[in-house]
Amino acid sequence: MSATVASHTTGPGGTLAAIRARGPLIHNITNLVAMDLTANLLLAVGASPVMAHAREEVEEFVSLAAGLTINTGTLTREWLASALAAAAQATGIGRPWVLDPVGCGATRFRLESARQLARSGPSIIRGNASEIAALAGATAGQAGGRGVDSTLSADAVLEQARQLARSSGAIVAATGQVDIVTDGAQIRRVSNGHPLLTRVTAAGCALTALTGAAVAVSSEPLKAAVHALAIMGVAGERAAAKAQGPGSFRSALLDELYGLDPQELDKEARIT
Amino acid sequence: MSATVASHTTGPGGTLAAIRARGPLIHNITNLVAMDLTANLLLAVGASPVMAHAREEVEEFVSLAAGLTINTGTLTREWLASALAAAAQATGIGRPWVLDPVGCGATRFRLESARQLARSGPSIIRGNASEIAALAGATAGQAGGRGVDSTLSADAVLEQARQLARSSGAIVAATGQVDIVTDGAQIRRVSNGHPLLTRVTAAGCALTALTGAAVAVSSEPLKAAVHALAIMGVAGERAAAKAQGPGSFRSALLDELYGLDPQELDKEARIT
Amino acid sequence: MSATVASHTTGPGGTLAAIRARGPLIHNITNLVAMDLTANLLLAVGASPVMAHAREEVEEFVSLAAGLTINTGTLTREWLASALAAAAQATGIGRPWVLDPVGCGATRFRLESARQLARSGPSIIRGNASEIAALAGATAGQAGGRGVDSTLSADAVLEQARQLARSSGAIVAATGQVDIVTDGAQIRRVSNGHPLLTRVTAAGCALTALTGAAVAVSSEPLKAAVHALAIMGVAGERAAAKAQGPGSFRSALLDELYGLDPQELDKEARIT
Repeated sequence: MSATVASHTTGPGGTLAAIRARGPLIHNITNLVAMDLTANLLLAVGASPVMAHAREEVEEFVSLAAGLTINTGTLTREWLASALAAAAQATGIGRPWVLDPVGCGATRFRLESARQLARSGPSIIRGNASEIAALAGATAGQAGGRGVDSTLSADAVLEQARQLARSSGAIVAATGQVDIVTDGAQIRRVSNGHPLLTRVTAAGCALTALTGAAVAVSSEPLKAAVHALAIMGVAGERAAAKAQGPGSFRSALLDELYGLDPQELDKEARIT
Repeated sequence: MSATVASHTTGPGGTLAAIRARGPLIHNITNLVAMDLTANLLLAVGASPVMAHAREEVEEFVSLAAGLTINTGTLTREWLASALAAAAQATGIGRPWVLDPVGCGATRFRLESARQLARSGPSIIRGNASEIAALAGATAGQAGGRGVDSTLSADAVLEQARQLARSSGAIVAATGQVDIVTDGAQIRRVSNGHPLLTRVTAAGCALTALTGAAVAVSSEPLKAAVHALAIMGVAGERAAAKAQGPGSFRSALLDELYGLDPQELDKEARIT
Repeated sequence: MSATVASHTTGPGGTLAAIRARGPLIHNITNLVAMDLTANLLLAVGASPVMAHAREEVEEFVSLAAGLTINTGTLTREWLASALAAAAQATGIGRPWVLDPVGCGATRFRLESARQLARSGPSIIRGNASEIAALAGATAGQAGGRGVDSTLSADAVLEQARQLARSSGAIVAATGQVDIVTDGAQIRRVSNGHPLLTRVTAAGCALTALTGAAVAVSSEPLKAAVHALAIMGVAGERAAAKAQGPGSFRSALLDELYGLDPQELDKEARIT
């Protein structure tokens, strides 16, 4: 069925239709702030979320799932052990997985944890510009982060994103006003989105989960990362047109993701 | 006061009115995804939620509360120890408590944990059809679960629900398009609800908390379980009529639970 | 820039404008229920939230942040160790921090933990009347709490609030229908707010985070506490006028905090 669906379009609309058709089970080891929005976003696009971090069961969940996402937002040493075990299992059985190195430039523990995960075989690394710069080796001053927020544009870290893609073997997606996606050689840019996305907590984390759903139904991680950015960006633009502020925007974002027409999505996506 | 209120109706409207009149304190050991919606739903119906899982204090909270709910959604070994202590305390002092064996068919750790809890004296076990089948002893293949979602109808697990009720001594509520509730002998069915309830994360977990509030103001666990299903189902139908998707549905669900008229609830409830 | 903004008004409008202008990074060690609303509220007013509790990194985050908040809502022994380390670091380097002793009258573990934190140099202690009474030394019966909710008015604990302010050296804010704020000598009252604020989980916890943002841009903790109460209260009144219940109220509250005009805020604030 998904082959038929995908044949309608090779754009983000095809990826969204494939997620809805297949309903992939996505296992998320995410942070405590992002749990609610991440699960709700995956349900809104038709995927099936599972959150599980107990060391006793993470490998089993990875095996059941079509994709895995790992997020360092409120990481502890115990959760890191589970995350590394899940990453090893996913890489070992060829399950695509996405790393979100939240705030990795802020503390030594986060940076070391994120680098250890980046060396564990992620399919895609998705972060803001400061996180990508920090992970690629920039010093704290160069990475320009503040807490978990970025103070850099994605294009400012283009070279670091390329290096990180080559050293990790992952597709790297650096988000900002214009997002960039690279495999170390090719560069794609997505210029959808809206400033209100930066006023809803965990919107980036939820985008990572959407990227996990996209790569779970795709054989091309670069395309999956680009399409997830376009889906989120277009839904964000549409939601902003109806919202009075970040509270109503969050509800409208889930409504838009749920109702988004694949053909209209393809028309509104700005991918270069 | 609640006696007077309850005399108006012996249907779900009477139970909702009793929750509002008494405002029972409900102690929840629930999963990390369900915290927000669970607490908000309990506040919306007039109950008073407490979330607490520290081994040092769970027994004290059980003693203060009118009811307890235990949910295995993101269980770890540490939380399991607290959950078992809370369950023992509740059973020991005769406090009603509800078990929600989230995703118990998915991993060995979850299944063993859920079974241990099911043997600890719950008043009510509330799960989807796959969870009830797994807990009752079906093999992974028969239980038909996928992650934390069910692929079975509740009626397909009727016999397993009955067996589980007899072996555990608990009322068993298996939810699906039509929900079933049994004490091992009697069967009641509730056919309210809306598909959007499956697109909001933790709606089932929050229903478990509502069941905890219902049984805390009732002397009949079977009736309490049936009424909680009807309250959630009717509120879900009303919310869906106003919603544009799962984001606005979640807000509308809480609004409806807050404003629901007990007499209209009794009229719209479909209980057989 | 913030100096210019602050010169427009010395009321709550000036504090809100200063938060928006400076966008302070606020580090929160908060409970599992409050994560989502706390982060979203801080983003709505223009602050930048970080949630981090790992023992390995809390001191680094305190050093990066302009303010810290510590909340005992779902405290465990591990989180308490991190909270104490963060508190010591904040006090040591002169970073303002706010303590929210959620439900501290309910169990021995919470009361001991909250008292230990109260002795660690908070700038402000923000709690409901029962929490303030319990922290100040009232017995369980006198403190009048039930779980995490208060059964007392703030004025009923005025003397205990004063004592706590004197013994801890912190500004004490006790919230209720009318809020009181004291440094042990002076008393200020804020009478904004709406009953729906008690039907949204973690509204008090999010108010604590807002207090953290206010004190991070202010040199006067008493004024910061008063202004945070007025900002939350006025936004709550405006949100209630648009809401159909607690679900839509929560969204509207964030929208109002985002869009609130500082001059209108000053007009609608009721501070005596």
